[in-house]
Amino acid sequence: MDWRTSVSRDLEAFARERAVAGIDWLEFAVEWRKLYQPSMEEVRSGRRAWTILDLLHRESLEKLLERYGIAGLTEADIDHMSRAWHRLDPWPDVVEGLTRLKRRVIIAPCSNGNIALIVNMAKRAGLPWDCVLGAETARAYKPMPQAYLASCAQLGLPAAQVMMVAAHNADLHAAKAQGLATAFVARPTEHGPGQRTDLAPDAACVDVAARDFVELARKLGC
Amino acid sequence: MDWRTSVSRDLEAFARERAVAGIDWLEFAVEWRKLYQPSMEEVRSGRRAWTILDLLHRESLEKLLERYGIAGLTEADIDHMSRAWHRLDPWPDVVEGLTRLKRRVIIAPCSNGNIALIVNMAKRAGLPWDCVLGAETARAYKPMPQAYLASCAQLGLPAAQVMMVAAHNADLHAAKAQGLATAFVARPTEHGPGQRTDLAPDAACVDVAARDFVELARKLGC
Repeated sequence: MDWRTSVSRDLEAFARERAVAGIDWLEFAVEWRKLYQPSMEEVRSGRRAWTILDLLHRESLEKLLERYGIAGLTEADIDHMSRAWHRLDPWPDVVEGLTRLKRRVIIAPCSNGNIALIVNMAKRAGLPWDCVLGAETARAYKPMPQAYLASCAQLGLPAAQVMMVAAHNADLHAAKAQGLATAFVARPTEHGPGQRTDLAPDAACVDVAARDFVELARKLGC
Repeated sequence: MDWRTSVSRDLEAFARERAVAGIDWLEFAVEWRKLYQPSMEEVRSGRRAWTILDLLHRESLEKLLERYGIAGLTEADIDHMSRAWHRLDPWPDVVEGLTRLKRRVIIAPCSNGNIALIVNMAKRAGLPWDCVLGAETARAYKPMPQAYLASCAQLGLPAAQVMMVAAHNADLHAAKAQGLATAFVARPTEHGPGQRTDLAPDAACVDVAARDFVELARKLGC
């Protein structure tokens, strides 16, 4: 999903409705994303009990609203803004690619997003998941082994019969370490025009590389 | 799903392949189903740690194979028979009704079946779930309150915004007690031609009653 464009546009539109002016919402979205890994790390480290991503997103948002001096919003406004992550637009190849993959294989997200986030996103974007797996069903955030292993177990499949697909080599490295097959689909503008990371697959952990999900479906014979 | 016809036909076909003769497979399927509630009760009571239904089904099958004196099957044969519950056929209105409901609302099973069972069944039968909830994501078997409440929480919705749909009044009674809306769809031949139970909705716990899922979709404005 194109989180950078989607979140910044969503917040910008909402800010206009609420007459919040003078904020660079693209910068705000990037700052919000910077709090994503540290907030999950509290849970991964065991310093914090299991907590779904919706709540971590909301807490990070509250910190940023304070940092940017944005006041006067209601609880419902902040809830709405926090759920900007439920309203991400897919990259243009995703719906067609997933639809083709679904004809031949079970397709399920193995994301750090919680079930409601993924379901609402899929419903809005038309992503045809067979079921929703990942952090909430595993009660563990990637890249912890349990996030991958529980998702395979919930499908009743050995890891070697499951393929993790990601745009991040670190995610595929962690999946490969648990015995999953892996596919890399590059998203070279996920972090904006100057992106330097994850431009190419890491041959050490990637079984299949594809330009987009339509090519991935073709490469997997779907 | 029409479990009685589906399981008995599935076992009968497999028995023919394996040259197992002289068994009434309809009776066998009904006997298998009789072990369903007692096996879950071990978990609900706390006497046994959380165990998915696939494993309970397999253990019950092993007991029955012994009782019926069926020997000479491989582990793979018994695995295949045990997964007869993954290969249930839907009642004829279900795919059309769910497809219509899905246009307007999130549809998810809240079943005692584990995720793999429900996903494999849906894939084979064409059931268009948005996600798979129920006993395995809640780690509790219905009718325990947690089975309903965890499913609502995983959708990020208050119970009053979620509707439990079932052919069993006891299921709807338990859901209503947790604040969910309820709908009853009768399956008057689920237990065979002489069925005496669940022929009509119990007005004490049913908000909406429908003849089938297509009528349910129409009644809910979908």
